[in-house]
Amino acid sequence: MANINPRVIKVEYAVRGPIVIRAGEIEKQIKEGQHNFPFDRVIRANIGDCHASGNQVPVTYIRQFLAGCTYPPLIDSSDFPSDIKQKVQRLLSVCGGKSLGSYTESQGLITVREDIAKYIQERDGYPSNPSDIYLCNGASDGIKTVIKLLMNNDPKKPSGIMIPVPQYPLYSATLSEYGAHQIEYYLDEDNNWALNIDELERALNQSKEHCVPRGIVIINPGNPTGQVLSRENIENIVRFAEKHRLFILADEVYQENTYLPGSKFFSFKKVLMDLGAPYNHMEMASFHSASKGWHGECGSRGGYYELINIDKDVRMQVNKLISASLCSAAWGQAMMGAIINPPKEGELSYELYKKERSDIVSRLKQKADLVSQLFNSVEGVRCNAVMGAMYAFPRIEIPEKAIQHAKSKNMAPDAFYCFQFLEKTGVCVVPGSGFKQKPGTHHLRTTILPPVDQMKVMVEKFRKFHMEFLREWK
Amino acid sequence: MANINPRVIKVEYAVRGPIVIRAGEIEKQIKEGQHNFPFDRVIRANIGDCHASGNQVPVTYIRQFLAGCTYPPLIDSSDFPSDIKQKVQRLLSVCGGKSLGSYTESQGLITVREDIAKYIQERDGYPSNPSDIYLCNGASDGIKTVIKLLMNNDPKKPSGIMIPVPQYPLYSATLSEYGAHQIEYYLDEDNNWALNIDELERALNQSKEHCVPRGIVIINPGNPTGQVLSRENIENIVRFAEKHRLFILADEVYQENTYLPGSKFFSFKKVLMDLGAPYNHMEMASFHSASKGWHGECGSRGGYYELINIDKDVRMQVNKLISASLCSAAWGQAMMGAIINPPKEGELSYELYKKERSDIVSRLKQKADLVSQLFNSVEGVRCNAVMGAMYAFPRIEIPEKAIQHAKSKNMAPDAFYCFQFLEKTGVCVVPGSGFKQKPGTHHLRTTILPPVDQMKVMVEKFRKFHMEFLREWK
Repeated sequence: MANINPRVIKVEYAVRGPIVIRAGEIEKQIKEGQHNFPFDRVIRANIGDCHASGNQVPVTYIRQFLAGCTYPPLIDSSDFPSDIKQKVQRLLSVCGGKSLGSYTESQGLITVREDIAKYIQERDGYPSNPSDIYLCNGASDGIKTVIKLLMNNDPKKPSGIMIPVPQYPLYSATLSEYGAHQIEYYLDEDNNWALNIDELERALNQSKEHCVPRGIVIINPGNPTGQVLSRENIENIVRFAEKHRLFILADEVYQENTYLPGSKFFSFKKVLMDLGAPYNHMEMASFHSASKGWHGECGSRGGYYELINIDKDVRMQVNKLISASLCSAAWGQAMMGAIINPPKEGELSYELYKKERSDIVSRLKQKADLVSQLFNSVEGVRCNAVMGAMYAFPRIEIPEKAIQHAKSKNMAPDAFYCFQFLEKTGVCVVPGSGFKQKPGTHHLRTTILPPVDQMKVMVEKFRKFHMEFLREWK
Repeated sequence: MANINPRVIKVEYAVRGPIVIRAGEIEKQIKEGQHNFPFDRVIRANIGDCHASGNQVPVTYIRQFLAGCTYPPLIDSSDFPSDIKQKVQRLLSVCGGKSLGSYTESQGLITVREDIAKYIQERDGYPSNPSDIYLCNGASDGIKTVIKLLMNNDPKKPSGIMIPVPQYPLYSATLSEYGAHQIEYYLDEDNNWALNIDELERALNQSKEHCVPRGIVIINPGNPTGQVLSRENIENIVRFAEKHRLFILADEVYQENTYLPGSKFFSFKKVLMDLGAPYNHMEMASFHSASKGWHGECGSRGGYYELINIDKDVRMQVNKLISASLCSAAWGQAMMGAIINPPKEGELSYELYKKERSDIVSRLKQKADLVSQLFNSVEGVRCNAVMGAMYAFPRIEIPEKAIQHAKSKNMAPDAFYCFQFLEKTGVCVVPGSGFKQKPGTHHLRTTILPPVDQMKVMVEKFRKFHMEFLREWK
């Protein structure tokens, strides 16, 4: 231990942290039948994993396409849908030896990048170029690559990246690993977790003696906070970034996950282009993923990023850097391609696809609505509306006595709270402290993915637990 | 450009470098019908990509298994092989929601890790524990993770890692990216590219004023050099590493690729265990990949590493670090699982599997033999036997006049040579300088993957080109 990379030791990642490890141990004890827990199953609401936590069945079209790419003799069967057959043939035509088993171009298969560019163009109304698109192993991989580019490796005055608080812990983990400075800006909880420009200025200003500010991360729709930023808010963020010459990292992996009427998703690219000069020349990256949306294909680790307005020499550097890992997984690329280019009306697979989509989407909307209502009905809990993404991030009042007790055990108060919640009810959520939060506030993050009936059980368990906790520690 | 990470600028990766980009341009011109090249196709011998360069068809069993995992309704069909059906069911039983679309455990699916542990145990005769196995996105991903652990991030006296010269350029690229010191040791070309212990001592000694030596990379079977190390050579390397307390990184991705009679593969783990105390307590990592072997499933980016004798606290750090990227691609994991646990004699899929395997393996053996013979028949070229892996690394005599001309153009002499070879014949190989080589020597790396007839054409083109080159520059 004395010899390992000290930056690795600093890395923290709560979504798979100690509470999740404990949940696994409890599950194992339950499975083995030797336990005294007052519950007989663990409800996992710690991770945005649709197929695992929501018992959600994969989308037929996506899996037929991927199976056809995997084992092409399938597409010659008479019951293989002809529209999907054509898509399989098109994809394999650009694979070396017509096999998904070949390395792809480092940036990813050209047909997939063409489809992504088309998707972006239709979304934003501005052109997108396939040579600006980079397929990667999940958005995480792409985010790490882009942050890497911004590092100066100066231990005295390292590069600084602005990250929201609360944030998705991949960011703090990556910045720790790279030895960068984390410039934390607080999201405005009282204003539906919007970004406040004065707060951005404050955070940036205070950071300048510690680092060289280089970029700003915005997660929209928000993880763990579930907000969808307004167009006006995005415009102001773009102006702020331009003023301070910050590279924008737009984490837009939840772009298809918006629920509340009126909470429309605007991409940073669109806003930047709409604003015209000088904004439409700003450098930025936008990240998307096969893991999220409503299809939730996390296991494929499909993802992409678009590099916008990047200097051509810098792009050559990116291409060289990623080529040393050869390419991202071809199956993940195919998955991303399937998601981004679904069956169109009139095509053979369309009706089933449409039905499956509307079933899943309507369940997600229902749960997004339900979860904040339920949390808000509990005394001492306040939960912003889940406008988008897959999470609720309710704020919990923790009695002072419990706070002191947690501190005496060297635990964050909400970690103590969430561990108790797990041990007493079997529900696994992630403490707010794992995402960072404003000092003095306490939260937990739950996904909205468990099935509706489990979700209701979960919140009822929570209500009962919370009341008892308040009683015990008052 | 002035603002990007200076370490990124230092990264070099020849296997997908300028010559390969140029080959792509030429291919495009040929496809568009507008060209004056004296050839009508590019032969790509630059990358170990079986399906793309060898027109090799994927193994039926592997793809049926993966298609079944992807779209489970397939396995209920009466013509789906029952043995593969059982394997699909077993794999999906450990996936969240029985879907490959769920995140897996960070280390990878337990059944796959169990199968890998069994494979290792059968290979070495020593126990292997599934909790020491880490699935990753290709061996590259695993190698980067393990090297990361060994970094001290001290710019004045950084961690040093010993790498062979010639080496696979992922190593130099990764060490540049991490700001580590590359301790280069020369392989002994006159002795079939073996490791000479005096040379290891020299390299290590000379490095000590520049770095803190932490590990040694050995690639066996060798890339780009094609040697298979003798057991005795491995024993001596282990003793050397123990003496200097170096962490062993054993790149064993070509462990199934041995061709010459008598060139048996011994894993570092086996030798370490055979040697007994204190060697059998040494820390090491061994890497394997789905991309190589004879099945060549590069696109899946499946791979794994085994961490041997690792301190339990360090292992917790590894687990934490990899959890921030959630998990490697589930399809790549399934692929690695399929490769490592093939059909057994008596099972329904066995006969076809056996036939496909023996066809591919015998072609590889034939080509390994052919390629060194052919190169050695050319004046001014000397090529060690291809004992294993997928490459020949012939040494080329380049006339002094050509060397001076290349230098005047700021090119490595063998890069100039290989570019000429590409422009005049359409054959794309990688200059030896991309892998590093002993100063004053020049090489090229070619794969042995093109089909036998193409391979013969390729070497005939080479013979003619080389003669003309000698004439021109003498």
